Amino acid sequence: MTYCVGLMVDSGLVFMSDTRTNAGIDNVSTVRKMKTWDVPGERFLCLLSAGNLATTQATVSLLDERMVAPSERQPSILSQPSMFQTAKLIGETVKEVISGNAQGGQIAESVFSATFIFGGQIKGGRPRLFMIYPEGNFIEAGADNPFFQIGEHKYGRPIIVRTYDPQMSLEDCAKLLIVSFDSTLKSNLSVGLPIDMQFYETDSLAKGYRRRFDQKDEYYTTISEGWSNALRSAFDALPAFER
Amino acid sequence: MTYCVGLMVDSGLVFMSDTRTNAGIDNVSTVRKMKTWDVPGERFLCLLSAGNLATTQATVSLLDERMVAPSERQPSILSQPSMFQTAKLIGETVKEVISGNAQGGQIAESVFSATFIFGGQIKGGRPRLFMIYPEGNFIEAGADNPFFQIGEHKYGRPIIVRTYDPQMSLEDCAKLLIVSFDSTLKSNLSVGLPIDMQFYETDSLAKGYRRRFDQKDEYYTTISEGWSNALRSAFDALPAFER
Repeated sequence: MTYCVGLMVDSGLVFMSDTRTNAGIDNVSTVRKMKTWDVPGERFLCLLSAGNLATTQATVSLLDERMVAPSERQPSILSQPSMFQTAKLIGETVKEVISGNAQGGQIAESVFSATFIFGGQIKGGRPRLFMIYPEGNFIEAGADNPFFQIGEHKYGRPIIVRTYDPQMSLEDCAKLLIVSFDSTLKSNLSVGLPIDMQFYETDSLAKGYRRRFDQKDEYYTTISEGWSNALRSAFDALPAFER
Repeated sequence: MTYCVGLMVDSGLVFMSDTRTNAGIDNVSTVRKMKTWDVPGERFLCLLSAGNLATTQATVSLLDERMVAPSERQPSILSQPSMFQTAKLIGETVKEVISGNAQGGQIAESVFSATFIFGGQIKGGRPRLFMIYPEGNFIEAGADNPFFQIGEHKYGRPIIVRTYDPQMSLEDCAKLLIVSFDSTLKSNLSVGLPIDMQFYETDSLAKGYRRRFDQKDEYYTTISEGWSNALRSAFDALPAFER
């Protein structure tokens, strides 16, 4: 399993992803599920992935290779005119990887399934955030659905739904997502530390602040421990039930 | 879907269940998923059910009919010597219903699947709480796992994990479960109001306080609206993230 979130606020985008990957409960590894590309002053792109690791890595590699190998330069992830076209390219690449594996191999396509959160900004456009499905199609975030989650999304959803505000600072988004991730980590062993976080500030057209939170991270442990007490106080503050 | 919780504290047991049942998103009804039996001074039993409605209703009907029809009186739910034996009887009944439907009918047994939370107390024993699987086997709650959830359990789990305390009053359990149910209702359309709640007080050997919370229930709406604010204050009280 996996847990990734992409969150859109007025001041920018915040991406967070865990790093646990497993093939069975007794075969656990750590892998970065966040990939960024940037051309300062022109564009910033961030891609989070959940699902079959071979599919997500092949997709990222294809997007990368097409960028660097001159002969295959045509559908380059850095040469698309808009975020929409870039999302479309990623969708087509995922679809290609999945159908390539499915042909002549295992029949069940679901085994190779992968879902992505993709966001960023290209000069001339506004920051945009998408969720890309294994079928290659995608949906976009807006005022009514300002965030996407992929992977084990249920445990960490209520806190985002109740606390999200489009005027939050990126720092508050970081705090919110850490609470959401911590709730998920406490409930599902297949989501694990370290956690990668990436900020993108609206109109900066550059890679923003990035941080990895691991087991020893002081802020992470403060939030993780503090949240139980804070929640307990919030609970105590609610009116008592009377028969 | 469904959401039911059985919670064990020192002072007793609290059961809560939603009432939404659906066959497809366009075929929604309300049904009570909580069934109680009691013989004052001797025993109190409560059964919560999730899964195929035909299976859960047939199971409850069989347990009931065997109780009232003299010729089939043998395995009566009210004549078992212990909670363990009663859980075993329920497990056998579920298994019988599922295999009865599966024979000569549809092959996929999972379609008829159902899971139960069962708790109560019989004179001479302590209060006990079980989760009964469609296979007929079951597990029991203890100090390390003092509650069971069935159905859509993920959204409402973190708040129980972080707030549960064995010394809570039954009233505090009610408040906690309403928060947990409200988080679930806000996230999954297939879990819905009204909500049924049943208290059992340790060693009372009688049916305790019971309440149904519907859309207009004042306490439910107070908690539902108050929790967003309380959560927001708790969140604000956590130390801010700094780059």
